Amino acid sequence: MELLEERIRRDGVVRGDVLKVNSFLNHQMDIGLFNEMGREFHRLFGEERVTKILTIEASGIGIACIAAQYFRVPVVFAKKDRTTNLSDDLLTTQVASFTHGTTYQVVVDRAFLSPEDRVLLIDDFLANGAALEGLCRLVEQAGGTVVGAGVAIEKAFQPGGERLRRAGLRVEALAQIISMEDGRIAFAR
Amino acid sequence: MELLEERIRRDGVVRGDVLKVNSFLNHQMDIGLFNEMGREFHRLFGEERVTKILTIEASGIGIACIAAQYFRVPVVFAKKDRTTNLSDDLLTTQVASFTHGTTYQVVVDRAFLSPEDRVLLIDDFLANGAALEGLCRLVEQAGGTVVGAGVAIEKAFQPGGERLRRAGLRVEALAQIISMEDGRIAFAR
Repeated sequence: MELLEERIRRDGVVRGDVLKVNSFLNHQMDIGLFNEMGREFHRLFGEERVTKILTIEASGIGIACIAAQYFRVPVVFAKKDRTTNLSDDLLTTQVASFTHGTTYQVVVDRAFLSPEDRVLLIDDFLANGAALEGLCRLVEQAGGTVVGAGVAIEKAFQPGGERLRRAGLRVEALAQIISMEDGRIAFAR
Repeated sequence: MELLEERIRRDGVVRGDVLKVNSFLNHQMDIGLFNEMGREFHRLFGEERVTKILTIEASGIGIACIAAQYFRVPVVFAKKDRTTNLSDDLLTTQVASFTHGTTYQVVVDRAFLSPEDRVLLIDDFLANGAALEGLCRLVEQAGGTVVGAGVAIEKAFQPGGERLRRAGLRVEALAQIISMEDGRIAFAR
């Protein structure tokens, strides 16, 4: 997606293998850009009879909510810890965070994912794929169907995207970065 | 806001002093409802020359992003911990969580709040007011102006709303609950 690639080139900051897109994607959020991204996700997955969008807190939520307007479906976000406000009937799985070097539990109330659901996963980044794999397991526990995953930015030089696609998941990245060597960002063509 | 009150009456679940609105507000999210809420926030604050919406992860993000479409401004969400992806130039404050009985740090990159900003705070719940007070302090540290706070649900039998208004903040709640005794929800009129 040209608009997103241009924005990453202009406002993204590379530090080693970290790409900071804090100014428009995952801390400050450019809602006009999110709308164009949501439109694109709908162009890609609009025929999939999506009944629900599933994302994970916190950075995926904004993108998922704006995209949901095109699909006219509810958004569910998986929570990273168990709080008193959740029910006792939870879908749970463990996710390894490479950014933080830890493992955390993600949970979704079983009431919000059913065997009838056709679920589109949405997230801001795909790198090692651990978060998306965790979301797939939650949908599987519910007996639902994952129709695919839409991510804003894929770091295609990290192994997540390839592993998920080899496992049969349809993964669409709006910007696919193949290298960030010497601070220069190269996109897949 | 009639639509939200009806929805709380229909789908909210009261357990003691906890109101669960997980099915449409802060776990599963009804984006059509969020659009009506965003429109109402804009009706209330549209004359305030808002330049930025500030919320706090995670449950405020969806409401803030949908509302931002009416204001045509970016959303910034305060983060609850410091990650490697943030800069070293942070606005930080401590917030006490009554739900979890703990205190956590919230941070915003200084780059995204400036002295010129006229900030609308958005959150899902107002009960003890600690989160909104924390957001006010972050804007103050940046030298910006808080034009007000828009919350979906105020538990007006808890002290936050009164304290914030007494301190001079304009607080607008789309649904203001004055009691939840015996599981019956009563709204302010």
